This record gives sequence, structure tokens and C-alpha cells, in this order.
Amino acid sequence: QIDSARLWGTIHETAQFGATPKGGVRRLTLGAEDKQVRDWFRKACEDAGLDVQVDALGSMFGLRKGRDMSKPPIGVGSHLDTQPTGGKYDGILGTLAALEMVRTLNDAGIETELPICICNWTNEEGSRFAPAMMASAAYVGDFTTDDILSRKDAEGVTVAQALDSIGYRGDAPVGRQKFSGFVELHIEQGPILEAEGKTIGVVDSGQGVLWYDGKIVGFESHAGSTPMPLRRDALATLSEIVLAMESIAKKHGPKAVGTIGEAVIAAPSRNVIPGEIAFTVDCRSADAGIMDALDRDLRAAIVEIAAKRKVEVQLDLVWRKAPTHFDPKLVDAVENAANQLGYSHRRITSGAGHDACNLNTVMPAAMVFVPCKDGISHNELEDATQTDCAAGANVLMHTVLALAGV
Amino acid sequence: QIDSARLWGTIHETAQFGATPKGGVRRLTLGAEDKQVRDWFRKACEDAGLDVQVDALGSMFGLRKGRDMSKPPIGVGSHLDTQPTGGKYDGILGTLAALEMVRTLNDAGIETELPICICNWTNEEGSRFAPAMMASAAYVGDFTTDDILSRKDAEGVTVAQALDSIGYRGDAPVGRQKFSGFVELHIEQGPILEAEGKTIGVVDSGQGVLWYDGKIVGFESHAGSTPMPLRRDALATLSEIVLAMESIAKKHGPKAVGTIGEAVIAAPSRNVIPGEIAFTVDCRSADAGIMDALDRDLRAAIVEIAAKRKVEVQLDLVWRKAPTHFDPKLVDAVENAANQLGYSHRRITSGAGHDACNLNTVMPAAMVFVPCKDGISHNELEDATQTDCAAGANVLMHTVLALAGV
Ligand SMILES: NC(=O)NCCC(=O)O
Ligand SMILES: NC(=O)NCCC(=O)O
Repeated sequence: QIDSARLWGTIHETAQFGATPKGGVRRLTLGAEDKQVRDWFRKACEDAGLDVQVDALGSMFGLRKGRDMSKPPIGVGSHLDTQPTGGKYDGILGTLAALEMVRTLNDAGIETELPICICNWTNEEGSRFAPAMMASAAYVGDFTTDDILSRKDAEGVTVAQALDSIGYRGDAPVGRQKFSGFVELHIEQGPILEAEGKTIGVVDSGQGVLWYDGKIVGFESHAGSTPMPLRRDALATLSEIVLAMESIAKKHGPKAVGTIGEAVIAAPSRNVIPGEIAFTVDCRSADAGIMDALDRDLRAAIVEIAAKRKVEVQLDLVWRKAPTHFDPKLVDAVENAANQLGYSHRRITSGAGHDACNLNTVMPAAMVFVPCKDGISHNELEDATQTDCAAGANVLMHTVLALAGV
Repeated sequence: QIDSARLWGTIHETAQFGATPKGGVRRLTLGAEDKQVRDWFRKACEDAGLDVQVDALGSMFGLRKGRDMSKPPIGVGSHLDTQPTGGKYDGILGTLAALEMVRTLNDAGIETELPICICNWTNEEGSRFAPAMMASAAYVGDFTTDDILSRKDAEGVTVAQALDSIGYRGDAPVGRQKFSGFVELHIEQGPILEAEGKTIGVVDSGQGVLWYDGKIVGFESHAGSTPMPLRRDALATLSEIVLAMESIAKKHGPKAVGTIGEAVIAAPSRNVIPGEIAFTVDCRSADAGIMDALDRDLRAAIVEIAAKRKVEVQLDLVWRKAPTHFDPKLVDAVENAANQLGYSHRRITSGAGHDACNLNTVMPAAMVFVPCKDGISHNELEDATQTDCAAGANVLMHTVLALAGV
């Protein structure tokens, strides 16, 4: 059993790095607060006797030796970055539970056959730089390191510049650290476990993701003197697109979601009809066929709206992540651990994307979920109980021990 | 007759202060470019022998003596500030035509009975500080000078700070400069004169304006893991409000307009359902009864949308300007001048607000319109012909001469 109080203590200690007034965390990837938590994590890993490496995209790897060093380690971990108004658990629980596992094994003097490597992946959230799960996507070869290094945030700062500014552009090439398998603990970020009173989610699959960059070009004109029928209003156009996205997603019942999370009017003014808007779209399904339908329906709706309103709308797919089907053996290992420890559990699909989803494309991977309050995440009010966090950390540890061998 | 080439020259000379790549002007009130054009205007007034005063809100008054200095002058002018992506004519034509008139009278050695005062009113556009026509509204007593001085722009800079930063907080109390009447030349900013092939618009009325500040508070949550039916999406809410405003305005045919020109998502992120949005509303009609209906219908629509989407929507009226009915004698004077000069003309309602609309509440006022290309305004592509601008300036001068007496 891990030390529940110690795990809880590290979650709340690190929550100071970027703490917000409403009790959340604002720790954008590769910013000043991210450097603080990274420095803390590096020292904690070193204090626990781990050999810490940083790769060219800033991902951090802390290696605990195993008896058989000829085999790659079992990877465990998640991320320490957050949304602009994020919570204290998303990613953090999984990373600190990996650290807590190492501390527990050290205290108990437990050696494993395979080595174990605990990980903090760079930019899982994807809100400062696109795509989300950026570093693990490069790790599995979905993008080259150079491509990712050149991506820019809204201020035009590149990933390379941001890494250098906090001193986390490491010298290990991306992908050099190999793994025999990967396990990630995370809060569910949805309402199912809580509603059904289950402690553990045995994650067997994950939704695919489509990310788009959109731009609407209408025509700026005077809000007082331009008759309604002559307008080419970019915001009215966006409004129809937002509502179309919503009804397209709803058509598929619980099997799809669609969101417009960002929309910026160029040169906004109270008495000017908006002429230009940049926006982004996030839509998802666990079913690849439905993902295709979402793409098709959204594009068709936009063509129709643009024609009706005599505006130009551009929609560029910037990221497509296929649905995930986690490795059946590792999923079984998670389920066995939950059974052995006597926790209630159910199989579950992840609504969110995770580094484990990327890693699963090149190695066996699986995930453990624990409930979060009211299913709330990507919100400063995100919450989880100490008991559930400890239960998840125990399932994580026992899964890793089963895979690494004692 | 004014000097058409000289007027055209000053329009294009001053268009350099804040010139944009697309041929427009970005000269936000009380900013660095506004200081440049004000310095230029002050020197031009002094060179024309005018006595220049600046009031406590930065409005500039250049006085040309008349034979009878016991009576207040006839005021003539407009504004030199622009929208963030504005044109070269909106406000500028009216101010520089007033200067051109003085130069013409000087060259011809014409004395008037009443003095003439040419004006540049501060913040007519209302895009940096609300409301629009801010200084003339304070002039007529709709707001106190102190209230206006404390208004803030989006960066939190007050009118007082902005005035001080460019050295245009004058020592004349607001309202001290009295007028016997006021005449303003402006581009139409709408499509009617051009469509009907008329050179001069004899403006007899102006739309009333309602300006609101709005705020939507929904709930931020994860774009991937939050089921569609559980969302409280602030952007989807705004979208319904935008489309409701549009159909409410359309219900009144050509007699009303409604626009949402600004909308800012708090803490936007691609994979976060927007939780909070600030927006503004501009709606107008020349009919006070329709203005009341617009207010009522918009509020009712918002109550319904907010209840359906389980979000909070706040809507605060920040400005109400009643419809304008210009002084019949002055309107006739404009019409007479157009007739005498042989220009085609028609009576017209102003869709936009103007300083003359404020001034008309405490003195006789009227306006002269000239066509602008495709009715486009509040856009960098705003355009007007040299011939039409000169025609408007001639009608302006002859109206003023009739009122001031030769
Ligand atoms: N777990 C999580 O919130 N990841 C962020 C990437 C996503 O949007 O799914
Ligand atoms: N003339 C003009 O564009 N004024 C700005 C104020 C308004 O929105 O009507």
C-alpha cells in the first residue's frame, strides 16, 4: 500500500506552483510555474535515487534500476502542466502517484525484475501549443522533433524558445528512452464512476480527436447604418457554426462531442459589425466511423452557412488522433490489480486524450481512472478525494509490479 | 466655393497619422496618432488666425471673430478619431471641411456677423471609451465631466490619464464655449444617396441608440469528457443571443438594427468548454417605440436562452440615446444651400450617431451628408469622391454663412 497522506501532501504542495484564487492551478506548459514544478519533481526524483534524463522536448524520465537491465523499463506517469484555469489533479495525480510508488518501493526495499521509469510528459494539455499530448506524439513518431520545436503559441513564442527560456531543452533525443509498457493513472474527468459508485475505472479505450483551426472573413461595417440584409457578419456566422457543431454532435447521442473553445474577433469594436474571426474546433468520438461523419457534417454545414451569409469560412484540420484500444493484456492487469485490492471497478472509455493513448500505438499501454467530483475537469473547481487518489495509486503500483515482476 | 484640391489634400495629408496597410486609418481617441492629428489641426487653426481653446475633455475649438461678438458663434465640425480599422473620411471630412471653409472665407476676405467656431470633438467613435460622442454628450449635460474622466478603456486607462498622456486636458470647462447653432458635414455611412444618385443628404433625423454590456457565466469543463447534455456552454449561449438579436432587429424591417460587435471568452482553450464571456450589444432605431420593443424583446430572449441553457446572463444598459429630430429651421437652411448650389439632394435619417445629435438637444443643429462608396464605413475600405466631398463642404459653408450672416 502506498502512503496515502504522503501522496496527498505532494499534490497539495505542488499545487502552490501556479495556484489560482479559486483553488485551481494555472501552469501553462513551459512557463515559469511549469519550471517551478519541474525543478521540484527533478529534486524529488533524485532524492528517491532515480537517474533523471530530460529529452529534447523537455519530457522528464526518472529511472529506477531493475534486476534485469537488459530489458526496457515499465513506464509510469502523466503530466504536470495544466489548463489556463485548470485543477489540482489532471495529470498531476498520475505523475505524483508514480513518484509515490517509487518512494513506497524504496521504503519497503522492493526490487523489481524490470526497471521502472517515471515520466512527466511535456504539454499534454495542448492549450499553449497544439496539439495536445505533444511530446508523447513526437515520441511515437506522429510528428518530428523539429516540427514540434517550431510550433508557436498565441504570442508567437516557439516550443524551442519556451524550452530554452526555462532551461528544459534536454539532450536526450526524443524516443531514445524505450519502455516495455506504459501505465497511467488519471482522474476520470467525466461523471460515470461517481454516478455508479465505482472506485476504479479500468480504461480499455479512448476517444479519437479532431482539432481544427477556423477563420471567418465577412465584412466590417457600421453597426448603426448598415441595414440587416446587407450584412456579412462574422460573429453571426460563427454563431451558426457553433450551434451546428452542437447539433451534429448531439445527433450521435452519447457517442460524440463537439466544442468551439476559442473565438477571437479581429479589431473588435462596439459599433462595428465583426469582419473577421479566428476560432478552433475540438470534436471527438471513440468510433472512427462517427469521427468521419462529424468531419463530413461539420464541413457541409459550414459550406451552407458560408454561402447563405456570403462570407468565407476556412477550416483546417490541424490534428487527427485515431480512437485508442488499449492493450488487452495490460487492461487485464489493471483489472486484476483492482480485484486483488478489493476495489469496485468497471471498464470505461476515456473521453479525454492522454499520453498513454499515444504510447499505446508503439507499446502495450493501459490506464487507471479514479472518480472526480461531479465529473468536473478543466476547471479550477476540479476535485477528488484522498481515498480515491490513494486507491488509484495502489492499483497503479500493483499493476506495475505485476508487469515489472518482483 | 471652397478649394476642392486643398480640402482633398488635407484629408490625405492627415490620413498618414495612423495609416493602415489596407488604406484605412487606426487613430483611437487620445492615443499617439490622435495627438499627431490634433497637433496638426491646432497649428492649421492658428495659421488660419483662429483662437484655439481646448476643454477639460480635450475637445478643440477654433474661434473666428464675427462683427457681433456679443452673440455665441455658429459651431461647425466633427471629429478626428477613428475606429480600430476605420476609414479616411468618417468625422475627418466634417472637421477638415470646417477648416477649409475658414481658409476660403479668409482668402476671400469675407466677414460674418456672428463669429464661427470650428470643432474637433473628443471620442466620437466610442470604441476605446464608451459611450460614443462622449465629449458632446458631456457638453450637453448627459454626463458630468468627472464621470467621463473616470471612464476606462479595455486596458484600465482612464480618460483623464489618456488626456494627460497626450497633453490635451485643456483648461476650458466643458460647456463654457456656447454656440448659436451647430452644423456638421459627414459621409452618409450607408447606401442610400449612392443608390439614388443624390449628391447631398439633408439630414432631418437620427436613430436612437441602445448600448449594453453583457456577461455570460456558464461552466468551464472538459471538451472531450463532458457529455453534450451536461454542458453549460457560454459560447453556445452567446451564439443563440447573437442570432436572437439578429431576428429581433429583422422583425422591424428597415426600421431597426442590432449588432454584437465584441465578445471575449475568459481563459480560452481549445479543449475547454467556454465558461465565461463578456460581450456588448448595439441596437438602434429612429422610432422610440421600436427602441423600447428592441429592449424588451432582447431581454425576453435572453431570459429564455439562459433558463434553457442553465447559465447566468447579465445585460446592463450602459447608454441610451433618444432618436434625434434636427431643428427644422436649420434643416431648411441646409436644403436651401443645396438648392442654391444646384446639387441633387434628399431628406435622410442618419443611421449613425453624431455629435450634432447630442448638440441638437440644447441648440438648433443640422447635418449635411455626402455619399460614400457602397455605403461602407467603419472599414478601412471606406471611400468617397473628391467631387462629393467638395459639394458637401460647399453646402456646409453656405449653410453656415446663411446662419452667421455675411
Ligand atoms: N487529460 C486531458 O485533459 N488531456 C488534455 C487533452 C485533451 O483535450 O484530451
Ligand atoms: N458617425 C459615427 O460613425 N459615429 C460613431 C458612433 C456610432 O456608433 O454611431
